[in-house]
Amino acid sequence: MAPGTLVYTGNRQSAPSNVHTFWYDDHTFSEKPGFAPEICPLHQGTTWVDIRSLTDAGPIEQTGAYFGIHPLALEDVLDTTQRAKLDEYENGLFFVLPNLKFDPTVMELQSEQISFFLGKNYVIAFQEDPDDTLHAVRKRLQEGLGRLRKKGADYLTYSLIDAVVDNYYMVLDEIEAQLLELEQGLYQHGDAPQSKALIFNMKRVVNDFRHRMLPLREAVTRFYRTESELVEDANRLYFRDVLDHVAQILDSIDNQRDILANIEALFQAEASNRLNNVMRLLTVISTIFIPLSFVAGVYGMNFDNMPELHTKHGYFIVLGIMFLLMIGMLGYFRTKKWI
Amino acid sequence: MAPGTLVYTGNRQSAPSNVHTFWYDDHTFSEKPGFAPEICPLHQGTTWVDIRSLTDAGPIEQTGAYFGIHPLALEDVLDTTQRAKLDEYENGLFFVLPNLKFDPTVMELQSEQISFFLGKNYVIAFQEDPDDTLHAVRKRLQEGLGRLRKKGADYLTYSLIDAVVDNYYMVLDEIEAQLLELEQGLYQHGDAPQSKALIFNMKRVVNDFRHRMLPLREAVTRFYRTESELVEDANRLYFRDVLDHVAQILDSIDNQRDILANIEALFQAEASNRLNNVMRLLTVISTIFIPLSFVAGVYGMNFDNMPELHTKHGYFIVLGIMFLLMIGMLGYFRTKKWI
Amino acid sequence: MAPGTLVYTGNRQSAPSNVHTFWYDDHTFSEKPGFAPEICPLHQGTTWVDIRSLTDAGPIEQTGAYFGIHPLALEDVLDTTQRAKLDEYENGLFFVLPNLKFDPTVMELQSEQISFFLGKNYVIAFQEDPDDTLHAVRKRLQEGLGRLRKKGADYLTYSLIDAVVDNYYMVLDEIEAQLLELEQGLYQHGDAPQSKALIFNMKRVVNDFRHRMLPLREAVTRFYRTESELVEDANRLYFRDVLDHVAQILDSIDNQRDILANIEALFQAEASNRLNNVMRLLTVISTIFIPLSFVAGVYGMNFDNMPELHTKHGYFIVLGIMFLLMIGMLGYFRTKKWI
Amino acid sequence: MAPGTLVYTGNRQSAPSNVHTFWYDDHTFSEKPGFAPEICPLHQGTTWVDIRSLTDAGPIEQTGAYFGIHPLALEDVLDTTQRAKLDEYENGLFFVLPNLKFDPTVMELQSEQISFFLGKNYVIAFQEDPDDTLHAVRKRLQEGLGRLRKKGADYLTYSLIDAVVDNYYMVLDEIEAQLLELEQGLYQHGDAPQSKALIFNMKRVVNDFRHRMLPLREAVTRFYRTESELVEDANRLYFRDVLDHVAQILDSIDNQRDILANIEALFQAEASNRLNNVMRLLTVISTIFIPLSFVAGVYGMNFDNMPELHTKHGYFIVLGIMFLLMIGMLGYFRTKKWI
Amino acid sequence: MAPGTLVYTGNRQSAPSNVHTFWYDDHTFSEKPGFAPEICPLHQGTTWVDIRSLTDAGPIEQTGAYFGIHPLALEDVLDTTQRAKLDEYENGLFFVLPNLKFDPTVMELQSEQISFFLGKNYVIAFQEDPDDTLHAVRKRLQEGLGRLRKKGADYLTYSLIDAVVDNYYMVLDEIEAQLLELEQGLYQHGDAPQSKALIFNMKRVVNDFRHRMLPLREAVTRFYRTESELVEDANRLYFRDVLDHVAQILDSIDNQRDILANIEALFQAEASNRLNNVMRLLTVISTIFIPLSFVAGVYGMNFDNMPELHTKHGYFIVLGIMFLLMIGMLGYFRTKKWI
Repeated sequence: MAPGTLVYTGNRQSAPSNVHTFWYDDHTFSEKPGFAPEICPLHQGTTWVDIRSLTDAGPIEQTGAYFGIHPLALEDVLDTTQRAKLDEYENGLFFVLPNLKFDPTVMELQSEQISFFLGKNYVIAFQEDPDDTLHAVRKRLQEGLGRLRKKGADYLTYSLIDAVVDNYYMVLDEIEAQLLELEQGLYQHGDAPQSKALIFNMKRVVNDFRHRMLPLREAVTRFYRTESELVEDANRLYFRDVLDHVAQILDSIDNQRDILANIEALFQAEASNRLNNVMRLLTVISTIFIPLSFVAGVYGMNFDNMPELHTKHGYFIVLGIMFLLMIGMLGYFRTKKWI
Repeated sequence: MAPGTLVYTGNRQSAPSNVHTFWYDDHTFSEKPGFAPEICPLHQGTTWVDIRSLTDAGPIEQTGAYFGIHPLALEDVLDTTQRAKLDEYENGLFFVLPNLKFDPTVMELQSEQISFFLGKNYVIAFQEDPDDTLHAVRKRLQEGLGRLRKKGADYLTYSLIDAVVDNYYMVLDEIEAQLLELEQGLYQHGDAPQSKALIFNMKRVVNDFRHRMLPLREAVTRFYRTESELVEDANRLYFRDVLDHVAQILDSIDNQRDILANIEALFQAEASNRLNNVMRLLTVISTIFIPLSFVAGVYGMNFDNMPELHTKHGYFIVLGIMFLLMIGMLGYFRTKKWI
Repeated sequence: MAPGTLVYTGNRQSAPSNVHTFWYDDHTFSEKPGFAPEICPLHQGTTWVDIRSLTDAGPIEQTGAYFGIHPLALEDVLDTTQRAKLDEYENGLFFVLPNLKFDPTVMELQSEQISFFLGKNYVIAFQEDPDDTLHAVRKRLQEGLGRLRKKGADYLTYSLIDAVVDNYYMVLDEIEAQLLELEQGLYQHGDAPQSKALIFNMKRVVNDFRHRMLPLREAVTRFYRTESELVEDANRLYFRDVLDHVAQILDSIDNQRDILANIEALFQAEASNRLNNVMRLLTVISTIFIPLSFVAGVYGMNFDNMPELHTKHGYFIVLGIMFLLMIGMLGYFRTKKWI
Repeated sequence: MAPGTLVYTGNRQSAPSNVHTFWYDDHTFSEKPGFAPEICPLHQGTTWVDIRSLTDAGPIEQTGAYFGIHPLALEDVLDTTQRAKLDEYENGLFFVLPNLKFDPTVMELQSEQISFFLGKNYVIAFQEDPDDTLHAVRKRLQEGLGRLRKKGADYLTYSLIDAVVDNYYMVLDEIEAQLLELEQGLYQHGDAPQSKALIFNMKRVVNDFRHRMLPLREAVTRFYRTESELVEDANRLYFRDVLDHVAQILDSIDNQRDILANIEALFQAEASNRLNNVMRLLTVISTIFIPLSFVAGVYGMNFDNMPELHTKHGYFIVLGIMFLLMIGMLGYFRTKKWI
Repeated sequence: MAPGTLVYTGNRQSAPSNVHTFWYDDHTFSEKPGFAPEICPLHQGTTWVDIRSLTDAGPIEQTGAYFGIHPLALEDVLDTTQRAKLDEYENGLFFVLPNLKFDPTVMELQSEQISFFLGKNYVIAFQEDPDDTLHAVRKRLQEGLGRLRKKGADYLTYSLIDAVVDNYYMVLDEIEAQLLELEQGLYQHGDAPQSKALIFNMKRVVNDFRHRMLPLREAVTRFYRTESELVEDANRLYFRDVLDHVAQILDSIDNQRDILANIEALFQAEASNRLNNVMRLLTVISTIFIPLSFVAGVYGMNFDNMPELHTKHGYFIVLGIMFLLMIGMLGYFRTKKWI
């Protein structure tokens, strides 16, 4: 496929796009379904175009053409294999990040690609899923709560990114819960095969999570340090705040990796411990009974001339000796703490 | 939750805030409970507001408003999941670090979040716990000992951070003690299960400690290198001193990690050694008695025509052969150093 | 061999060179087999010389002489052990990268060296294999599709590199497929020896792939950041796009390495689990029958005076006791979940 | 303890300080016991104050006061837990490094803290131990050998540091000797427990050594690159020379770590090999004799009607079959290379 | 030993120095044994002094004095434990690197130290061994082949370094051959002890090789980036070429390390597989015959009242049951793929 064609590459089912246009400044707020730039006075207030579902490239092309977005950025919107990144274009900043959910039934991180184009006085948000990850921000805008209406497009972008980053904490919590369960299961059931599979799956999930957060840290760092005029100096602090969150999440992931490695070591120690116990039992039983059986075997021989066989108490003496041997062995194993 | 709301996110029980205001210069020292900025002449001497317990956001908001502290900094004060960091604001430097204690009964690092806001002529200290980690500094101020009264707010901040960092050495010592105990236990009891659990827990604690110190090193480095005018060049040396301490602590932690890895390897070697010993005993016993039992079995067969059975000394000859076989085997195992 | 001699060092069979010259601008496109610089108006439009098969150094020397390419660059074209790199010369940029294919029958990455020399208004492409990896770009040029004809030599270079990088995704997909098969085979056949060999081979392939991508990332980064005037600022974005792709591929490779490590750990756990099961069976059988055999041995002794032997129900009582012992043992092993 | 108190924190026994003052230029050399700045003409020649034993803070305070050394530097002199470092003060450079000895009887690195304060025309050396690590330099000064008397205080500092660094090579050599012994012991005694303990201890020593050299490299690098006027440009080369030595030592340590890891892997392979051999013997013996014993057991049954028992050669035929079985088994194990 | 004494520290046997002086420019070439600066017109053409064998410090001191080489450089020439490095002096560049050979009989990298001092119009080469590693360059000079005579002292230095670096490829090839042999041996003989020793030795060699190449990369990078006027800008490219080679070699070494790690993992899997097979045989034999022996033991008891013994077909029925049990067990093990 030649560079430059706009085709959705993800695996979501085809769905009609769900587009909304918002315009606000400190005093007013207007909202219209569909792509409606006509409600947005130029060079004044902030416009937010919210596009959900990427299977239909039409509205994306239309919006891109209206705002003059570079074709490479539009291709990245539709190519859902993107790592998190910030690309600076002449007329705006393009930011991609994944929205993550942890599905405990299939033990998999599910990813939705969300991207933002921050231009002068406007933000365009592209969400892969039709459900709205950004509804909290929209609600705050509608209700005029917080700082949101008093600030510009850069603060809006921060709020949108922050809403996505908040979801990562939920993923962290769910992984935490699984790890706790794993640990308890290990103490209860030892090295059960299902624990092994769970460890395997959790390692895959945590590694996957980490591989997605590492480029995000880089991308947010670049947002915080960008020299673009689209981010006001006073609002730069908010991006530093996002950066702190991502760093915190990466710390927690590293911690979880350590814990998983620890759990795996425990699992192996448990398995080797069980093997030890099994072998110990075998050895105790064999060591006690094999010599005794030998003695019995000796007196089961059919030699004509075996004087002991014909003594009156021979049998009982041999039984007694066997009994003493057994007691001695048991004592020996007890001092060795094997039984 | 929208960015901008001031809510305590930790797990301490609700408690009334304990606020004190101090003011001093080279000659005078005054102190008043509660937030009392009226005792602090402007642009002269140094003011320290000490706020303990964060469950009530009231005094924090009040102090923040009085000194014009940025809302993001106030949010960070109350969000107790912060990594150590230095944030520079227009009117001050915001520094967060954890105060750590090691609780050997639950084998856990317990963390209290402490943060400082260093402004022009003033420092605000926020402690999560009601007990006073910073009492040593307060006492030195009251008694006018050392350099403290002769220097400004930057030196006070250094003293406060230093007081928290001093506690880390106590954590180090307690971990050291546990490691020593672990090592001795290993030599005494071998691969006992409780050793394994202790290794597991100590690894978790040391990893946790390290994950908390790494961002602290970065934060202190930034304090030492800050270009803010709030830190006098002559006092910069003191922050370098703190940096040295944190680097020392990280070195010790890395050393402890190496020791723990070493102990774990010993533990596994011990377990595999025991398995070896168990198998060796089993093999010695089996190798000696299984052939002997076979010989006895042969002479226990009921064939009519077994000439040996009817010789006069057959029984004793067989017994003698068995005895020699046993002696030979034992000698063989002795040369192999198995017994 | 002295530096400065032009000899092909690869292992391809000698083949005649296949050279084509293309010239185009926005309106015209001409094409001629062989090296034909006469069709290329100077300082106008873009010339592309495409040289396939490197066993004959003749056309390479001829082209190099015509365009004044530095001898070191020509040597690198023919030395097929190059890592990916960008070398800046006074009159042009020299870029090498491998074209990779994964051959699942021999479990090996097969590499063809491709290099480009980007000069003022011209690009020379050197391909080691006679088949044409770059045919897609040539076709787009011929058909005048996309941006290609409207842009200069730098964009052409980007398109050519991008065509090679696209092949890496196919390698990724094939490795992915092998990993999936490995995982399924592990769940079906356990620790079969063929799985071990496959893990071994896949690790070699993935490591090899990674060792080739690491220098490529560096090389593309330098292309994107080059201060050479041969890359227009507006086209720099396209090289950033290639960089994103390479970073994505490296991320995927790292992920695959993690998955392979995980699979290997599973494989070992599987093997140790089987050993455990084997030992368990041995122990169960031995522990049940060795004591019973001992009892039988006792009553097989030939003492004259063994009163039990002469009781009426002695045999049945002993059989009953043996049966109860066996039941007891089986119950014990069942509570231990060994059977 | 408040910052600013001068107390020795090491574990050496209290001993009187041993102080000497030296003064020299190209032509003259004078020496006096005790702190005697009166023998040192100002702004001329070089003064060296050599202080041994730190348990008595008196002379340190006195010297510090005379030369105006910053209190933080004096505290660092007495706090013997310092990592190697270079601190730049307004009037001088403060350098700390450990003097190391390897004690093979307790398998421990023993560390003595040595620090230098290089000021304008003077050097103060602080040694923790009463014995004189720096006697070689003092001797060269007294005898006027080499470049020492012709150069200034910076060259003297270099010579002193170099004398300490020379000791590290002796530690390296002693570790090398231990590793050689370990390797030979491994080939001679296999996985003896004392080898395991030795590996454990050597890993601790080598890790400890490495943790001490890493900050030293950093400190010497900073000395070599310092912009302080106290180091003449022409003498900078000498500090680069020390840096080379430290880098060499770190290389050797890394090599020793690799060798130790290798030895540990060998040790484990050896242990697992022994287990294999033990199991093999057990299996050979059991596999040969258990079936034979079964055959003997069959003919030991007491059925009335067992025709074989009453044939003339039955016994010898069974013995022959047993013998052939045994030979066959032995042959089988021999082809498998088990015996 | 005081810094500043010129003593050879290597382990080569004392041998007379072999010194040659060459002088050339584009048109002329003259050559004289011994140190003969009188043949070299000043400020014109290029002089090369070639010194072989370092046991006699005489010629080195003489040459050093003539060209005014810094004593530290001369000491480094004679101290054969140097890591590769570039040191810049006022009047020249001093470069050290090891010439490596792999000796397969003792499985060791053998190192000869070679150093160069590049001054204005002259190069001095110091070789530790009496045999001439640089003869290829000398021959090219004598025959006036290639670019060598047309270029200055910097290009000569490049050619000399390149000649040494070429030898590394031979080491790489020999290691490659050993690894191939190792792999094949593993497939043929499994976990034979000699394979283990070979793995151990190859790891030591590859690690050693890597530890020597890492500083070389750094040194060559500094040569390529030096701001010294002794390296012409046009010739800088050649040092970049050497850098490419060293990077390639390091890549290959990393690859070989991965392969060795892989082989070691295979080796361990092989050993654990063999243990599994051994245990499986033991278990199969034991599980089949121990119960059968028990049955035989039961009917070997001497109770008076054992009705089965007196039935006509009792013996054959028991034999039949034993046979069926054995068949059943064998079938069970076959379905489990144990036999």
